[in-house]
Amino acid sequence: MSNALYPGSFDPVTYGHIDIIKRAARIFDTLTVGVLNNNVKSPLFSVEERVKMLQTACAGIPNVSISSWQGLLAEYARQAEVDVIIRGLRAVTDFEYELQMAQTNKKLNPKVETVFLTASLEYAYLSSSVVREVAAFGGDIGIFVPDFVAREIYLKLRPEGVSGRAEDKDTDNEQ
Amino acid sequence: MSNALYPGSFDPVTYGHIDIIKRAARIFDTLTVGVLNNNVKSPLFSVEERVKMLQTACAGIPNVSISSWQGLLAEYARQAEVDVIIRGLRAVTDFEYELQMAQTNKKLNPKVETVFLTASLEYAYLSSSVVREVAAFGGDIGIFVPDFVAREIYLKLRPEGVSGRAEDKDTDNEQ
Amino acid sequence: MSNALYPGSFDPVTYGHIDIIKRAARIFDTLTVGVLNNNVKSPLFSVEERVKMLQTACAGIPNVSISSWQGLLAEYARQAEVDVIIRGLRAVTDFEYELQMAQTNKKLNPKVETVFLTASLEYAYLSSSVVREVAAFGGDIGIFVPDFVAREIYLKLRPEGVSGRAEDKDTDNEQ
Amino acid sequence: MSNALYPGSFDPVTYGHIDIIKRAARIFDTLTVGVLNNNVKSPLFSVEERVKMLQTACAGIPNVSISSWQGLLAEYARQAEVDVIIRGLRAVTDFEYELQMAQTNKKLNPKVETVFLTASLEYAYLSSSVVREVAAFGGDIGIFVPDFVAREIYLKLRPEGVSGRAEDKDTDNEQ
Amino acid sequence: MSNALYPGSFDPVTYGHIDIIKRAARIFDTLTVGVLNNNVKSPLFSVEERVKMLQTACAGIPNVSISSWQGLLAEYARQAEVDVIIRGLRAVTDFEYELQMAQTNKKLNPKVETVFLTASLEYAYLSSSVVREVAAFGGDIGIFVPDFVAREIYLKLRPEGVSGRAEDKDTDNEQ
Amino acid sequence: MSNALYPGSFDPVTYGHIDIIKRAARIFDTLTVGVLNNNVKSPLFSVEERVKMLQTACAGIPNVSISSWQGLLAEYARQAEVDVIIRGLRAVTDFEYELQMAQTNKKLNPKVETVFLTASLEYAYLSSSVVREVAAFGGDIGIFVPDFVAREIYLKLRPEGVSGRAEDKDTDNEQ
Repeated sequence: MSNALYPGSFDPVTYGHIDIIKRAARIFDTLTVGVLNNNVKSPLFSVEERVKMLQTACAGIPNVSISSWQGLLAEYARQAEVDVIIRGLRAVTDFEYELQMAQTNKKLNPKVETVFLTASLEYAYLSSSVVREVAAFGGDIGIFVPDFVAREIYLKLRPEGVSGRAEDKDTDNEQ
Repeated sequence: MSNALYPGSFDPVTYGHIDIIKRAARIFDTLTVGVLNNNVKSPLFSVEERVKMLQTACAGIPNVSISSWQGLLAEYARQAEVDVIIRGLRAVTDFEYELQMAQTNKKLNPKVETVFLTASLEYAYLSSSVVREVAAFGGDIGIFVPDFVAREIYLKLRPEGVSGRAEDKDTDNEQ
Repeated sequence: MSNALYPGSFDPVTYGHIDIIKRAARIFDTLTVGVLNNNVKSPLFSVEERVKMLQTACAGIPNVSISSWQGLLAEYARQAEVDVIIRGLRAVTDFEYELQMAQTNKKLNPKVETVFLTASLEYAYLSSSVVREVAAFGGDIGIFVPDFVAREIYLKLRPEGVSGRAEDKDTDNEQ
Repeated sequence: MSNALYPGSFDPVTYGHIDIIKRAARIFDTLTVGVLNNNVKSPLFSVEERVKMLQTACAGIPNVSISSWQGLLAEYARQAEVDVIIRGLRAVTDFEYELQMAQTNKKLNPKVETVFLTASLEYAYLSSSVVREVAAFGGDIGIFVPDFVAREIYLKLRPEGVSGRAEDKDTDNEQ
Repeated sequence: MSNALYPGSFDPVTYGHIDIIKRAARIFDTLTVGVLNNNVKSPLFSVEERVKMLQTACAGIPNVSISSWQGLLAEYARQAEVDVIIRGLRAVTDFEYELQMAQTNKKLNPKVETVFLTASLEYAYLSSSVVREVAAFGGDIGIFVPDFVAREIYLKLRPEGVSGRAEDKDTDNEQ
Repeated sequence: MSNALYPGSFDPVTYGHIDIIKRAARIFDTLTVGVLNNNVKSPLFSVEERVKMLQTACAGIPNVSISSWQGLLAEYARQAEVDVIIRGLRAVTDFEYELQMAQTNKKLNPKVETVFLTASLEYAYLSSSVVREVAAFGGDIGIFVPDFVAREIYLKLRPEGVSGRAEDKDTDNEQ
């Protein structure tokens, strides 16, 4: 029996993440999606908001749970009692950084293996930062994230004090 | 008939940029050089200064025009009614980032193709940031940028309040 | 006015090639697809067969013509009087080899530019050799090449002396 | 419950392979090591010899079995009823080729995931071909392969007709 | 007779740096380790502290001296009258950046060669920033840096105002 | 005092090799250029011819000697009593292969360091195989190799039995 952890920032969750989650959940007995609480960077969404969006996105997958963490990944993996860390691989630059992380984590916690899934081709160049940037300039992000995530992003990016939140009305219906 | 757009920061324009501009201008019917007005980063030169330097550098090429833009490149390409986005490729790290940009832009604006020219070998490792860094420490940048650009950089980097701007006098003569 | 050349082995043509041809034909005034007559390697299809398959695949694109060549690409580009050599970029290994070819060709024929288009994501890892290998083991290649090409491959790979060429009957209908 | 397949040539098995096998066997319920019967290349060892060496090397790992295959990996994975294909990642050149194989196999058999383990640092640049080359010139391969494999290699590489197979006498003792 | 310079931030020195220093000191007649005084970034240790740690770490190597510098590396190499700049290569991302630096420095100071040593495999993915990050979260860094460096890091990272600096007592003994 | 070895096939020597030789000869006390006698591949020039061409090309450099070798590089380095193996780095694909060779050689002969020089930009994509291929199709190789090497290549590639060897007349004059 193998328990896996898929760590990341998920700021916000994209179709690329959801694809990895679904595929990893088929391979491993349980999958914990771990949202990194990185208090150095200024994220678009709070950890709580990111956890909630992931819970909505993964609602239909029984062996997936969402959690959050801070500190060293190797230490979190030890506490969460997982056997495997899952990472999605996209491009060569990813690959180098991921190898460094995997080798460092193996030194810090030799019991945990890092295994890599390749991003599906349609999401091969998708990242949360691309989504945030496209959204910030008013571009269409419906091909990158689920509708309910897109609405959350536009709400977040909207100038404060705006009234008449028309989009909110649709939220319940579409999910 | 194909109209091309060469987007970038051009802070400042280098011999590497000028080489790409000349080569792209021979291939495409018109070429717009688009200076990115990125108000997040703190550039060395204002957008207006960068546009003006490019106009000087491209003065002799009839089918090249200089413009500026902000927001999404895919949207700017749509408004500028270009068929092609030009990018210069230097190294592998470039390549990965450029592929990501090209694939994202294709999703956002399927009508525009991104085409890549390879940097000429002599400029293969040249970038605006290298030029700025060398200049900041008083190194010779005459092999990286035209003389009139070099003078602008030294003026910009000079401590404020210095009088007797001798270099300015030469500017008109040398161009 | 820019005339482009898309050189390659095309043994056989794949959906990846066809995608590049269609996109390049929209950008340049004319596009010559040049089939390399490389008499060192032992190809699956003869040059004549490869030219014929490309002609079928490109039948609907008015500014595309199919040709064949041998010798130096830089010399062929000179004789064909093209301004641009088109290459599709897939991965990092491609990129290095393509840069080498582009720089060498530029030294041998400075008048011709090599420009790169990125492979569409769905064809990012497709190559003629993958198609040949999958077909050789009886795998389904219908997602990699047009039906009429798939039939030609299976005919070519079939043990000699087999009669009753049932597949041929479908050929005319499906094209 | 997940069943995994680790395909390869294993000509011969190295400490790098054994490291991947041990780590994969801890993660997955069963692991089949599949020796590729590639009748095109001329291997150093026959498929039967390679299977036998792997059986010796993996004797102590209960959930590992050794098998051989030819044809398409995607088809073999289907017949072997595995959920996961295991590959070891070493360097960037590996990475590109492995991505191509993984994406192709996913198209041919969408039910099977390819997952990657990173080679342990001490074996990061080890390959069977390096072992064969070092051995062919009489170099010490004891740091690359188990002793019983080293002896098999030297026997194989010895000029034919040599009698007095002194090394064989040690084989039983050392395993 | 060749004199070499090994420039870097060394914030702090790691076993990876020490490995490169020892190997370079065997090849070249003299080796100067040059600590970059980069007043833009906010380092963990001051230049003086970093120089002192390097002096301790290199105490037993007669032809190594420690120094500090700011400005252009090419200019510093000229003033230090070295023939060679040493750099350690780890991964592909390193490689691209290092090539850019080497080519730029060659243009600025053609008399100085940049030569690369490969990181030993066991330190292939080690960097000062990894060490700082692991230490910041309380992880064990004893496998990455000498003990006296580890103690300095923990002292530096400790919240201010803490009294009873027990670790300091051990420092003199262990060096 | 450091003695260096620059191993390779040199089939034939190019301006890229000569550039590395000149630069390495300035750094190290002695430099041996070692021509690999690889009896598996079918080279264009014999080892004796390659050694002779290198001797001509390096005639003016006092601390350079030319030799040939076969077998394991690590073993040859031991016999030649060198401290350093020199390799030129061009591109990422090179880099991966070179790292593998360096790490393997270090395991086989820990006393010898592999150090890398970067190819000068103008020769960054030059290789002996490109030279052979361009020459085979009658292209101009005068920008890639010295004139006396170019003449040797054309002689070698000429169909046998051709009389009136006009080129030979110039050979003595130009060297």
